[in-house]
Amino acid sequence: MAIPQVDALVFDVFGTVVDWRTSVADEGRMLGKTKGITADWEAFADAWRGKYQPFMSKVRSGELPWTKLDMLHRMGLDEVLTEFGITSLTEDEKIDLNRAWHRLHPWSDSVPGLYRLKAKFILGTMSNGNIALMTNMAKFAGLPWDCILGAEVAKAYKPDPKTYLTGAELLDLPPERVMMVAAHQNDLLAAQKVGLKTAFVPRPLERGAGNSPDLTPDPSFDVVATDFVDLASQMGA
Amino acid sequence: MAIPQVDALVFDVFGTVVDWRTSVADEGRMLGKTKGITADWEAFADAWRGKYQPFMSKVRSGELPWTKLDMLHRMGLDEVLTEFGITSLTEDEKIDLNRAWHRLHPWSDSVPGLYRLKAKFILGTMSNGNIALMTNMAKFAGLPWDCILGAEVAKAYKPDPKTYLTGAELLDLPPERVMMVAAHQNDLLAAQKVGLKTAFVPRPLERGAGNSPDLTPDPSFDVVATDFVDLASQMGA
Repeated sequence: MAIPQVDALVFDVFGTVVDWRTSVADEGRMLGKTKGITADWEAFADAWRGKYQPFMSKVRSGELPWTKLDMLHRMGLDEVLTEFGITSLTEDEKIDLNRAWHRLHPWSDSVPGLYRLKAKFILGTMSNGNIALMTNMAKFAGLPWDCILGAEVAKAYKPDPKTYLTGAELLDLPPERVMMVAAHQNDLLAAQKVGLKTAFVPRPLERGAGNSPDLTPDPSFDVVATDFVDLASQMGA
Repeated sequence: MAIPQVDALVFDVFGTVVDWRTSVADEGRMLGKTKGITADWEAFADAWRGKYQPFMSKVRSGELPWTKLDMLHRMGLDEVLTEFGITSLTEDEKIDLNRAWHRLHPWSDSVPGLYRLKAKFILGTMSNGNIALMTNMAKFAGLPWDCILGAEVAKAYKPDPKTYLTGAELLDLPPERVMMVAAHQNDLLAAQKVGLKTAFVPRPLERGAGNSPDLTPDPSFDVVATDFVDLASQMGA
């Protein structure tokens, strides 16, 4: 495949750059130990993440006004705690547990790959996470973003075309000079539809070792890479 | 002075972090050499910068709709070229000269100071420059921002209170946990008025060695530092 000529790479973050499932489950487990709560914390993480799309759909449809992801995470947390019968957390503990999404660990190739890519390209987030969440996570995980784009600056959640197009516009670049990097094919296809280039980096462990998702890449993607270090090599960075 | 307890430092950029006057004059001089144009390029830089406030005032007053700084710079450039009798530039050369603002050189203490501060604080821009301008300048000058805040994300030009308050809100921080860093006292006073902490870093050479501006700091500032390295020391970073 010829390398697409782009100036900026923009990244899906949850699942693509960071391992949300292990990180959230570990935070739950630590809190559980302190509080004497027993639970399947991986299932807890999955259930919490499962609230993500339905809540964003409410924003997309207008049922909810614009609401930042931190707040949607909190609304999801309250539901999941009820479903798991966890009733002993204080308000401060809930606030802190909700911030687990600010403390997600990167996949092992993410930071080295991003540093190589940063020398050649503008690197931005194209996540549904809000600016505070993305900024705190970058400090926590050492992610060297040049800028935070995505849902909050566009006031629209992916896969709304507005999210991708606002990002390109804020970079003052035509969409075809921007490449979307994601582990999720629907995200890439939505970006591609409005003119962005696409790089697929499958993350087979996103939902744990017990899952075997179909990761056969759509043939339309410009680049398919095994991880971020491979992506850097393929992009000549 | 006791060190203010803050989580984030947000920075004025033109004049505070980068030396716009020397950088723009040098770009003009280089272009002039290529094109055989003689001019006082420092005066050219001053005149161009002089268009900045009047154009922003038109946006603040509603006479112009929201317009990003790159575009205001371009409108100013067209006027200044006319005033200096420079008529031989092609459209591509004008576009490139306008991007001189994306290629400003930092003061010598800026990058080392920012790296020390970055280890302890969130560092954001609180500039009237748009996201593309700030992002490209950061790549060019090696400025390690964690996030780009300021006028474009707020759709309001400083010293509008909305610019500062939107930045704090996007960081999910109360204004008093954010410190504004600037070489311009009016910027600091406007930030202070809406609750931000303030650090004054005078830049006596901003308008050239021939100027001797009154840099006596307002006694209300929380920190006064000689440069960014001193600021890092004072902030315990």
